[in-house]
Amino acid sequence: MLMISTKVIGRLSFYRRLLKEAAADGTENMFSHELAALAGATPAQVRRDVMTIGYTGSPARGYHVEELRATIDAFLDTSSCGRIALAGVGNLGRALLSYFVGKAPQFSIAAGFDNDPAKVNRVVHGCRCYPMGQVAEVVAREGIRLALVAVPAGVAQDVAGELCRAGVTGILNFAPVRVWVPDGVYVENVDMSMSLERVAYFARNGANGNGKG
Amino acid sequence: MLMISTKVIGRLSFYRRLLKEAAADGTENMFSHELAALAGATPAQVRRDVMTIGYTGSPARGYHVEELRATIDAFLDTSSCGRIALAGVGNLGRALLSYFVGKAPQFSIAAGFDNDPAKVNRVVHGCRCYPMGQVAEVVAREGIRLALVAVPAGVAQDVAGELCRAGVTGILNFAPVRVWVPDGVYVENVDMSMSLERVAYFARNGANGNGKG
Repeated sequence: MLMISTKVIGRLSFYRRLLKEAAADGTENMFSHELAALAGATPAQVRRDVMTIGYTGSPARGYHVEELRATIDAFLDTSSCGRIALAGVGNLGRALLSYFVGKAPQFSIAAGFDNDPAKVNRVVHGCRCYPMGQVAEVVAREGIRLALVAVPAGVAQDVAGELCRAGVTGILNFAPVRVWVPDGVYVENVDMSMSLERVAYFARNGANGNGKG
Repeated sequence: MLMISTKVIGRLSFYRRLLKEAAADGTENMFSHELAALAGATPAQVRRDVMTIGYTGSPARGYHVEELRATIDAFLDTSSCGRIALAGVGNLGRALLSYFVGKAPQFSIAAGFDNDPAKVNRVVHGCRCYPMGQVAEVVAREGIRLALVAVPAGVAQDVAGELCRAGVTGILNFAPVRVWVPDGVYVENVDMSMSLERVAYFARNGANGNGKG
C-alpha cells in the first residue's frame, strides 16, 4: 500500500472543502496557485499533493474544480468510514455529538458509552448511550470501526484498550493524555488546552500568521 | 527574540503535564529517555527541547521533576495569558466554556459574544455574553488578548477581523475555515472534522500508532 503522510491527507481534506466552496460560488476551473493561495500552501505543494492521487489539470485552464473534488472524495473515500462510537457522554462528548451530527453527514455516531447511570439507556442528540461494560457487544453488533474518546484522562487508556479489543481501528482522542494502542490502530490527539497554551505563548511573543491546521 | 517553533512549544507543554503526573506519583527524578518514552519522543529531542529553555539535568540522576516543571512553567508563563473572549456561544462554544472552565484555571474566559438575542446579556457557565457589536468595547475594557472562535464558517473571517482590530493577538479557531489575520496575530486551527477524516482514512488503510498530537 502507498503510504501517505497525515499532512498530505489533511491538506487533501482541506482542498476538498475549498473546492466545494469554489463550486458553490460557480467557479469551474482553478489553477494550482489559486488553490494554494486559498489553502495557505505553495503551488508546488498543491501540485505534488494532487499528483499523489493521480489527477492532473489542463495547462491552459488548471484543475477542473468538480473533477478534482470528486477525485479527492474517491481517494479519501469518506463515504465508507462506517459507524463511530463516542466514549464519554459528558459536556465535551455531548458537544461532539451535536457538532458531528450537523457537520459531517458521512460520519454517523452509532453509539455512546458512559458509566454514569443518568446517561446510559438514554438517547442524546439522536445517539443511544450504553454502559461501558457493553463496548465489546455493541461495537461488534453495530460494525463500529472508529471511536471518539472524550473520557477523563485517568480512564482514557483503559477505554482505548477496550475499544481496540472490540475491533476499533481508529481513535480521535480528546482526553488530555496520550493513549497507547495495538499495531494496526491509528490514533490522533486533539488537545485543546495545549493548543490554547501555544496560542497564548505566540500571542504574547508576537509570532505571525497561521500555526498548524 | 528567540523564535521557537510551535512543535517545541507543544512538546514542552506536554512534558509539563507528564512531569506533573510524575510528581503526583512521587517521582523525584527522571532521565531524558524516561520522559521521552512517556511523551512518545526521542531522548535526543527531549534533551534538545529542555536545553532550549536553559535547563540541564544531572548526569547521575537525570532531571529533577519539580525543577524542570517549574522551569517550563516560567518559560511558557501561562499565568499571564490574561483574559480570553469566546466568539460564538452555540453548541460548540458552550462546550468550550465548560471544558476550559474546569480544565485550565490559568485561562479565564472573560466574555462571550453572539448575535442570538436568546444568548446575549445572559451568563453561561459563569461567562457573560454580549452582542457581537460590542466586541471592540468589551475586549478593550476587559483587557482581552486571546479569543476562541466558534462561529459558523461563513462569518469566521469577519469575526476574526473584528477581534484583531479590537486588540486580540492570538486566536484558536474552531470554525471549519481558514481565517486571515494581520501581522502580529497568531492563529491556530482546530478542525475536528478534518481530524476525523484523517483517522478514518488511516484506520481503513491500516496505519499504525500515533498521528500528530
